[in-house]
Amino acid sequence: MPKGQPSVVPDDGLTTRQRRNRPLLAVHTGVGKGKSTAAFGLALRAWNQGWPIGVFQFVKSAKWRVGEERALRVLGASGEGGAVTWHKMGEGWSWIQRDARDALSSEEAAREGWEQVKRDLAAETHRLYVLDEFTYPMHWGWVDTDEVVEVLRTRPGTQHVVITGRNAPRALIDAADLVTEMTKVKHPMDAGQKGQRGIEW
Amino acid sequence: MPKGQPSVVPDDGLTTRQRRNRPLLAVHTGVGKGKSTAAFGLALRAWNQGWPIGVFQFVKSAKWRVGEERALRVLGASGEGGAVTWHKMGEGWSWIQRDARDALSSEEAAREGWEQVKRDLAAETHRLYVLDEFTYPMHWGWVDTDEVVEVLRTRPGTQHVVITGRNAPRALIDAADLVTEMTKVKHPMDAGQKGQRGIEW
Repeated sequence: MPKGQPSVVPDDGLTTRQRRNRPLLAVHTGVGKGKSTAAFGLALRAWNQGWPIGVFQFVKSAKWRVGEERALRVLGASGEGGAVTWHKMGEGWSWIQRDARDALSSEEAAREGWEQVKRDLAAETHRLYVLDEFTYPMHWGWVDTDEVVEVLRTRPGTQHVVITGRNAPRALIDAADLVTEMTKVKHPMDAGQKGQRGIEW
Repeated sequence: MPKGQPSVVPDDGLTTRQRRNRPLLAVHTGVGKGKSTAAFGLALRAWNQGWPIGVFQFVKSAKWRVGEERALRVLGASGEGGAVTWHKMGEGWSWIQRDARDALSSEEAAREGWEQVKRDLAAETHRLYVLDEFTYPMHWGWVDTDEVVEVLRTRPGTQHVVITGRNAPRALIDAADLVTEMTKVKHPMDAGQKGQRGIEW
């Protein structure tokens, strides 16, 4: 239920209101479906609140999440809710000069993405950050997990962050406020069905 | 990855294309977060494909999912993707006469919702159905699970259905093509934090 009661009231010196408005770090991990789709579902709520939303897609393919991207862009441009900024590693990140993008390895591109997230957090650019598939650069050691945790721990203001992807590092899970593991119970690919338009992308 | 390879190729006499376009029954269950948010994330993809979307909210509160509802309504009205029809049990369902709504118990209202889903499926009204929190009427015995399974098994055309909620009945899981269990690893309410605007609703 939406306004559920907490199971314990902590002795942290905060009022309920202060605690309620505490910025959240959420992690959606596990091998099941729905990690990113749930993050974009959260973005709909943030949009409805009028919050500026920043999406960083840490994946190679520029075609990934085309449906979500188009929907969020239309919502952002509607003027009825929050603004939406959508950054794609698969296109070499928009803030990097076009001829410099091709020279970037995936590892360098992932680091560049994280550097921009840090700049945006420091400037309090957005109120919700969707760092899609960002667990992988951490898992692969391209981006230092301890640095990520420290930057998030000390981020200013009220900036919510959702990180998606398999293999979320332990330190990230420890630092998160909300962690959901998506577990695969059954998947059509197990029965020989390939991914389909409108469902998988 | 979006266009992944199936692990087995079934001996079902279908071509890959036929198998690919097979209508899906997806179930998001478990006690973790993200069951409904992931369903609405899926709706963004369906919208992007131009598919008509029908949402049926099987919950009492009319205020539930206000962010998702407003976002989907704006998208549906944008003319750039699929149309969106949003039905709320919490308002007594729009197709029921206003003075008759108040006389309905929750159980009767849930049954009325399911009757409309059946009519829409028979008429092939939508291409994606989000039956939000529909596991509960089944779990509580208000709606007969075997009938649901049979109606879904024999639905005409290409109509995808996503059902969300805890305690998905075994027969529904057996009938589904895609089942994801959302598992709670950590939740802010465990640390005494109450739900907050923009995150929980």
